[in-house]
Amino acid sequence: MTVAPSPAIVLVAPQLGENIGMVARAMANFGLADLRLVNPRDGWPSETARAAASGADRVIDGARLYDSARAAIADIGLVLATTARPREMAKPVLRPREAAAQLAACIGGGDSAAILFGGERAGLGNDDVALADAIVTFPTDPAFASLNLAQSVLLMGYEWFLTRGGESGRPRAALPRRAAREDVMRLFEHLESELDAAGYLHPPEKRPVMVRNLRTIFLKAGLTDQEVRSLRGVVRALSELKVRRAHKA
Amino acid sequence: MTVAPSPAIVLVAPQLGENIGMVARAMANFGLADLRLVNPRDGWPSETARAAASGADRVIDGARLYDSARAAIADIGLVLATTARPREMAKPVLRPREAAAQLAACIGGGDSAAILFGGERAGLGNDDVALADAIVTFPTDPAFASLNLAQSVLLMGYEWFLTRGGESGRPRAALPRRAAREDVMRLFEHLESELDAAGYLHPPEKRPVMVRNLRTIFLKAGLTDQEVRSLRGVVRALSELKVRRAHKA
Repeated sequence: MTVAPSPAIVLVAPQLGENIGMVARAMANFGLADLRLVNPRDGWPSETARAAASGADRVIDGARLYDSARAAIADIGLVLATTARPREMAKPVLRPREAAAQLAACIGGGDSAAILFGGERAGLGNDDVALADAIVTFPTDPAFASLNLAQSVLLMGYEWFLTRGGESGRPRAALPRRAAREDVMRLFEHLESELDAAGYLHPPEKRPVMVRNLRTIFLKAGLTDQEVRSLRGVVRALSELKVRRAHKA
Repeated sequence: MTVAPSPAIVLVAPQLGENIGMVARAMANFGLADLRLVNPRDGWPSETARAAASGADRVIDGARLYDSARAAIADIGLVLATTARPREMAKPVLRPREAAAQLAACIGGGDSAAILFGGERAGLGNDDVALADAIVTFPTDPAFASLNLAQSVLLMGYEWFLTRGGESGRPRAALPRRAAREDVMRLFEHLESELDAAGYLHPPEKRPVMVRNLRTIFLKAGLTDQEVRSLRGVVRALSELKVRRAHKA
């Protein structure tokens, strides 16, 4: 297994230990080392997972446990979400090969990246997909489209390995570094709490969609630290403006 | 599942029905329909295979049974063999993407093609690899290189699907059609029986290697029907020459 920087593989609510093990094996095949588990149904650690990993013990031993997708990607710059079909979200939709190119550009520039995979039954929920900068879908025969969890990881790992291999040794320009995802989330919450206070996110039944659409706008921008700080400043300035006007009224 | 022409997937001495089922599923994902089984250890049909195929029943139902790899590819033009490492054979070694391009060129030109996969434990034997025009190896981390059977089929299917999709609609020049593999094999046997008669394939312990090296030469040529007929004529002419000389002596 290599120790070169590589994207984190985040499994959100995976069910069977066996499938987690097969994911670990596929990761080891393609030099991926950072496995993150969000609420695995059957608990962790898992001997079933270890057996199915067929020797990819370092991935299993290094796996980290989280209680939300958000927590799992708190320190990550670029976040991709894998889905069976494009969702009704205004996010870029990438093929695995395009996604691998973005991952390689990001990690080659010294930044961090993660790919989210949903559980076996239902895939990622909309709230998890909303965390991501872009969606990855897999090209398959529409008449038989479903890939299992380990197969999806295998295909992403394969494209990552080829892209990274193809790029190795070539000097890269450093990219502007993305903000850690947790800082972006705090920006969103700051903005939304102010918008709630302003009565903007109304009526309540439409709030989730309005929030998601707003977040998507900023996520598409691929915000840097500096940009997040600037936006926090903007939100603060605007909300204080409202308070100031209220004082005047 | 599509019914467009696609390469046959030939599993040589697969062991577990479950793995055959997962192969069928991976085939259905990528529009591959022609599954050929050579001496499956646990027999056929297999309810374990059907369950693991997760609905890819058409692939399972259409699977055909053979008692040798040679019989399974008797009607095939281009034959590729998948191996974990390049073997000590003078055959081209392709990556899955290059292999998919060759398959697409072959099938787009109206010819037939097959990909051989070995059993779970030991992969393809040298005699099976020797049947092929080229070898396909999978790019993986050398520290953890082994892919399981269904994963290997999945990666080849994925590359086939992408390449075929990328080529669809583009007009293609018809390629010279390759001879059916059985005709090529008969040519080899004709040649070798004459060489045996001539005492050329000697000493006996070296015969297998000598035969394999000879066959490799012709396989690399990608023989057409016409070329096979011509070579049969050459072998016949030369061997009759020997008989004629013997008569004179």
